[in-house]
Amino acid sequence: MPGNRFGKIFSITTFGESHGGAVGVVIDGVPSRQAIDLNGVQNWLDRRRPGQGRLVSPRQESDRVECLSGLQDGMTLGTPLCLIVRNTDARPEDYEGLRDIFRPSHADFTTQAKFGIRAASGGGRASARETIGRVAAGAVASQILKAALPGLEVVAWVESVHQVTASVDPLTVTRAMVDQSEVRCPVPDVAKAMIQTIELAQADGDSVGGVIGCVVRGLPAGLGDPVFDKLEADLAKALMSLPATKGFEVGSGFGGSKMRGSEHNDSFVPFAGAHGPTATNRSGGIQGGISNGAPVTMRVAFKPVASISKPQDTVTKDKKKVVLTGVPGRHDPCVLPRAIPMVEAMVCLVILDHFLRNNALQLGFTEV
Amino acid sequence: MPGNRFGKIFSITTFGESHGGAVGVVIDGVPSRQAIDLNGVQNWLDRRRPGQGRLVSPRQESDRVECLSGLQDGMTLGTPLCLIVRNTDARPEDYEGLRDIFRPSHADFTTQAKFGIRAASGGGRASARETIGRVAAGAVASQILKAALPGLEVVAWVESVHQVTASVDPLTVTRAMVDQSEVRCPVPDVAKAMIQTIELAQADGDSVGGVIGCVVRGLPAGLGDPVFDKLEADLAKALMSLPATKGFEVGSGFGGSKMRGSEHNDSFVPFAGAHGPTATNRSGGIQGGISNGAPVTMRVAFKPVASISKPQDTVTKDKKKVVLTGVPGRHDPCVLPRAIPMVEAMVCLVILDHFLRNNALQLGFTEV
Amino acid sequence: MPGNRFGKIFSITTFGESHGGAVGVVIDGVPSRQAIDLNGVQNWLDRRRPGQGRLVSPRQESDRVECLSGLQDGMTLGTPLCLIVRNTDARPEDYEGLRDIFRPSHADFTTQAKFGIRAASGGGRASARETIGRVAAGAVASQILKAALPGLEVVAWVESVHQVTASVDPLTVTRAMVDQSEVRCPVPDVAKAMIQTIELAQADGDSVGGVIGCVVRGLPAGLGDPVFDKLEADLAKALMSLPATKGFEVGSGFGGSKMRGSEHNDSFVPFAGAHGPTATNRSGGIQGGISNGAPVTMRVAFKPVASISKPQDTVTKDKKKVVLTGVPGRHDPCVLPRAIPMVEAMVCLVILDHFLRNNALQLGFTEV
Amino acid sequence: MPGNRFGKIFSITTFGESHGGAVGVVIDGVPSRQAIDLNGVQNWLDRRRPGQGRLVSPRQESDRVECLSGLQDGMTLGTPLCLIVRNTDARPEDYEGLRDIFRPSHADFTTQAKFGIRAASGGGRASARETIGRVAAGAVASQILKAALPGLEVVAWVESVHQVTASVDPLTVTRAMVDQSEVRCPVPDVAKAMIQTIELAQADGDSVGGVIGCVVRGLPAGLGDPVFDKLEADLAKALMSLPATKGFEVGSGFGGSKMRGSEHNDSFVPFAGAHGPTATNRSGGIQGGISNGAPVTMRVAFKPVASISKPQDTVTKDKKKVVLTGVPGRHDPCVLPRAIPMVEAMVCLVILDHFLRNNALQLGFTEV
Repeated sequence: MPGNRFGKIFSITTFGESHGGAVGVVIDGVPSRQAIDLNGVQNWLDRRRPGQGRLVSPRQESDRVECLSGLQDGMTLGTPLCLIVRNTDARPEDYEGLRDIFRPSHADFTTQAKFGIRAASGGGRASARETIGRVAAGAVASQILKAALPGLEVVAWVESVHQVTASVDPLTVTRAMVDQSEVRCPVPDVAKAMIQTIELAQADGDSVGGVIGCVVRGLPAGLGDPVFDKLEADLAKALMSLPATKGFEVGSGFGGSKMRGSEHNDSFVPFAGAHGPTATNRSGGIQGGISNGAPVTMRVAFKPVASISKPQDTVTKDKKKVVLTGVPGRHDPCVLPRAIPMVEAMVCLVILDHFLRNNALQLGFTEV
Repeated sequence: MPGNRFGKIFSITTFGESHGGAVGVVIDGVPSRQAIDLNGVQNWLDRRRPGQGRLVSPRQESDRVECLSGLQDGMTLGTPLCLIVRNTDARPEDYEGLRDIFRPSHADFTTQAKFGIRAASGGGRASARETIGRVAAGAVASQILKAALPGLEVVAWVESVHQVTASVDPLTVTRAMVDQSEVRCPVPDVAKAMIQTIELAQADGDSVGGVIGCVVRGLPAGLGDPVFDKLEADLAKALMSLPATKGFEVGSGFGGSKMRGSEHNDSFVPFAGAHGPTATNRSGGIQGGISNGAPVTMRVAFKPVASISKPQDTVTKDKKKVVLTGVPGRHDPCVLPRAIPMVEAMVCLVILDHFLRNNALQLGFTEV
Repeated sequence: MPGNRFGKIFSITTFGESHGGAVGVVIDGVPSRQAIDLNGVQNWLDRRRPGQGRLVSPRQESDRVECLSGLQDGMTLGTPLCLIVRNTDARPEDYEGLRDIFRPSHADFTTQAKFGIRAASGGGRASARETIGRVAAGAVASQILKAALPGLEVVAWVESVHQVTASVDPLTVTRAMVDQSEVRCPVPDVAKAMIQTIELAQADGDSVGGVIGCVVRGLPAGLGDPVFDKLEADLAKALMSLPATKGFEVGSGFGGSKMRGSEHNDSFVPFAGAHGPTATNRSGGIQGGISNGAPVTMRVAFKPVASISKPQDTVTKDKKKVVLTGVPGRHDPCVLPRAIPMVEAMVCLVILDHFLRNNALQLGFTEV
Repeated sequence: MPGNRFGKIFSITTFGESHGGAVGVVIDGVPSRQAIDLNGVQNWLDRRRPGQGRLVSPRQESDRVECLSGLQDGMTLGTPLCLIVRNTDARPEDYEGLRDIFRPSHADFTTQAKFGIRAASGGGRASARETIGRVAAGAVASQILKAALPGLEVVAWVESVHQVTASVDPLTVTRAMVDQSEVRCPVPDVAKAMIQTIELAQADGDSVGGVIGCVVRGLPAGLGDPVFDKLEADLAKALMSLPATKGFEVGSGFGGSKMRGSEHNDSFVPFAGAHGPTATNRSGGIQGGISNGAPVTMRVAFKPVASISKPQDTVTKDKKKVVLTGVPGRHDPCVLPRAIPMVEAMVCLVILDHFLRNNALQLGFTEV
């Protein structure tokens, strides 16, 4: 039942408060004899780490991953991997004045309502540090996937920041193109405009949101389940469980609701092309909850970061009105660049889990 | 692991192919001594039943629910409820010509790819009949919720059909307002335009999609989990597991990604008002994955129905090109009116499950 | 969380009260394209059916299994199977006088304590009819196993009844040998003595218990998990979940606790023999929770049936003393003969589930 | 699906190899605002620690528990607890000669068969060190239980070692009585004989097994589920998942199979006494899978430790015969004294989980 778990076969449990001893993840359901490169895991953590530049939180965490179990000479033993990252730059004193104040659009109030207690500093499990466990596990998943499905590519990018939007081709975008810009938008000119937008908000003591696009290329047909565990349902859950998300689309998304069936339907073609078995890909690579071999395309909306420096009205635990003059702590004016590896990690976790689920039930038949 | 399950405590398993003996659901994790009115369950099924009018599939199924277990004199025994509906109007002959043809944007191809076999007629688990089990279970959940949380209201409505959009106030809309129109849009004039739009598409042998809005009012603060099982993540999964869905939004949704933090943040107020503990409700009633007492607002995008009468290019199982002249079977030109109880059912299932999860871990403390 | 589920991949949910509309099972996690013969399932149900002879309950239930979903022309579709058996010979009037009396060593008292309500007649879920769903699912599992592991044999037998004990060789016993006697003991002379023992008890208005032995031959090495889901732990749970069980042993069992390590250890041998890879088999085919290829041997103790005709002291719901003169309803003087297919069913469910679990995590390596 | 998990609500995942970086546990499903004393957890670990005396393994591990998350000032936050113990006295060189040899009745062979790889030294997950995570979690569970059910007592004791058996009264035995002897048998004279038996076996380079008894007193009626998750089934699984176990009994156990119904049935009495609601307690405190308020009594058989110094025949990975002259590493001649806290821990985990499961489904009714 517990809510700190994700995945049915390749199944992770994350733990750790922002200002506690460590954050991390235990992965159960790991296939044995898989090569895992911890440097590769570290690379993913480095991509989501704060303190990378002007645009993100200045909190300095080296975020060095330590593997406590499950690996021997870089090979999985088939036993649980426990990966931890120590918290080293926690500054609880920054949060002193916040013990009894509910920050607007933060989880302070709801955490108190649910648990009757909350971490005295740092946001507890609602902190972005919670995602370290996910990203580490997602990096492990991506390495196992790479061996099992060599053609698989998972690429996420910043598609829009506030009102600035890039047009990105999901068939050709690469991780290299994404990472060449600090803001992780693969279109250089638009990336510049996004950076200006973020800096402008920061200068105003404000924050901005945006949209992340993601594509999975090279996914075979047959992943996903026909009813509750539709591939798009599991992706929706995975991505809507990231902090600050407000919306999810697959394929044609909300725009598709404005089309007629004759416009929206994807005709099947005799030979697989760029869109897999179909001439077009409004389905987003999933039909009836199951992948069809075309690229899986999706978009996730992130709200602007709740922590801003501008004064805000709020109340104390005792329901007294107060003005909060600048949320203390170190925060990103825009979470999207750091959220790229989070999105990729969650997508890899969903795909590996469904791949192993298919594996479980395949008793010797060949596909279509 | 299996994919025909939903819910961690109040946990359902649905079963049944469109043209098999029956469709239904087994509900495990049922609190004992709850009064369940099977007429109420039947009412929900009647709302999602085909053959209700011009706008929906003419398939005539009385869809009478039968309860095989778990109830005694209308009271739950705390044992599993098994609810079934016999399939009586299946016409497998309608599907004769389709055995070896992949209908565009249907699940024929992907079902074959995943399972190496598929129901010879009727769409199998990909049929809308699969949702009968969900709706029956959701109706049971709504009755248990009504007793436990008397103020709770779950209302869904058709917000847009194709390009026609209604503006609906989530604070005041009622199920009665929704049901007064055949198209289940609570704004009479817009409802009329929607009906025209659907009839026009139908006349063209075409279909349309749209957007369903949904609100949960009277939900207490504290439901949902801080990490993977965020309330919005579980709602996203629940709703994106419905057939034909392409997108999900909570609160401000994609629009929220275009705002600044200072515009988006919801200030806390000393006295609970229409938006619960906050002055505004861009959060959509959920903060940090946990309900805050404000109305939970969400939107779901449905693509146009894939079954249309217009000729379409497609391929056979042997990858031969064919033109499909009208998808046989009886289909809706627009799925949205019948999807209203499906949306409400899935939302009730999520909420009851989280309510019981909270129950499990509460060892005597009082809320905020 | 719910307690009417068993199995992680091949996962069943049973439902149904003794005197309700039907009892049955939904199986989720079914591999597709498996041939299932419903006559074979019916055979298993016939073996556990009451009314088979003098030794068992005279309740006459034809117990015809009906398959509502998941099969097409005898092949699995990869979707859930729902199998039901209607209750036709329920006689609730037999239980009239028992509404407010707690029968000794029955589940009346504890059901009331847990749920605050109980089935007015027939034992509800505590009835032996609850096992119909398990046996039907176990029969399906055995057919899938037979195709996947052609050499696999699961054989259970009555090893003792009251003080009468048979010596049975787990290496050679067959189902045919077991079924040739009404009491399902494969040693004819001992079988006769057992029958006399049961008849004697019955004549006294009393009941007897006994021990069932079970062996799994032809199981490959590698099934079971090293920690919580050890093969013997899952078998223990499976068998201790059957009604009236009081003990479980694997391999040397309690007797093994009286040996020294040098006597108990099973030496490995260069060539597989009757005991698989070891010269002896005190391990019972499992080492470190994982099968080693030797026959898996186990024993289950059943208490005497609680329903007896002799007068017994007990109390009413209001804690008033009463003498219960003969438990009404139709009951077995000895449950063991009918429990044979229950034991085999539970063992098949455990083995198929672990087989599929192994399948899930095997990404292309060859065994030892 | 993964096998390193236990519990449905209070749910633990253990991790760690014997000779890896650390062993530990993540606990999810923790009620908030519970006081947890880490010294108490340490005490439980000290009781299961090697190096405590002559009778157990001389491996010197301080086994200091470190809590990485979930606690703030000794109070649970409602978030996962991660507890780890570093491995400090691993001596992989002891295992050098064993890389390619299968030790008799160890998990070497089966681990290799399942995973195709195994820890090069120290037994990996099959080591007794794996139980550290369970004991730590069980200690946490016992503290939460103590607050919720103040009258609850869980006491385990060594009932027999090899052929030496103690007669222990489950109604009166206390943990203090158990711990006064190094061998953890509460009957001083028998304890002495047990110690001699162990020392004799050790002197011979041999090992011995035995039986552990356990009682749960003060458990309310109503815990456990009527079908698969019967309380005795979950206890059986919990205890049969401990290393070296071969048998489990509840209440009358195998002996009960030799009684008649009229002897075995427990009459209900108007006033609760030493055996709760019944005059006798052959049921062992559980009827129909649900606790009845009487003490829950059980017994677990442990085989003799597989690691002995005597020469043994075995084979190498290449199936070559070899004589193993003394199993290297540091081992216990008898595992039972150290297994006492393991048994108590597993029992506490089962009880707390079922307590929370009951909590989940109780919507305001009063018990019998």
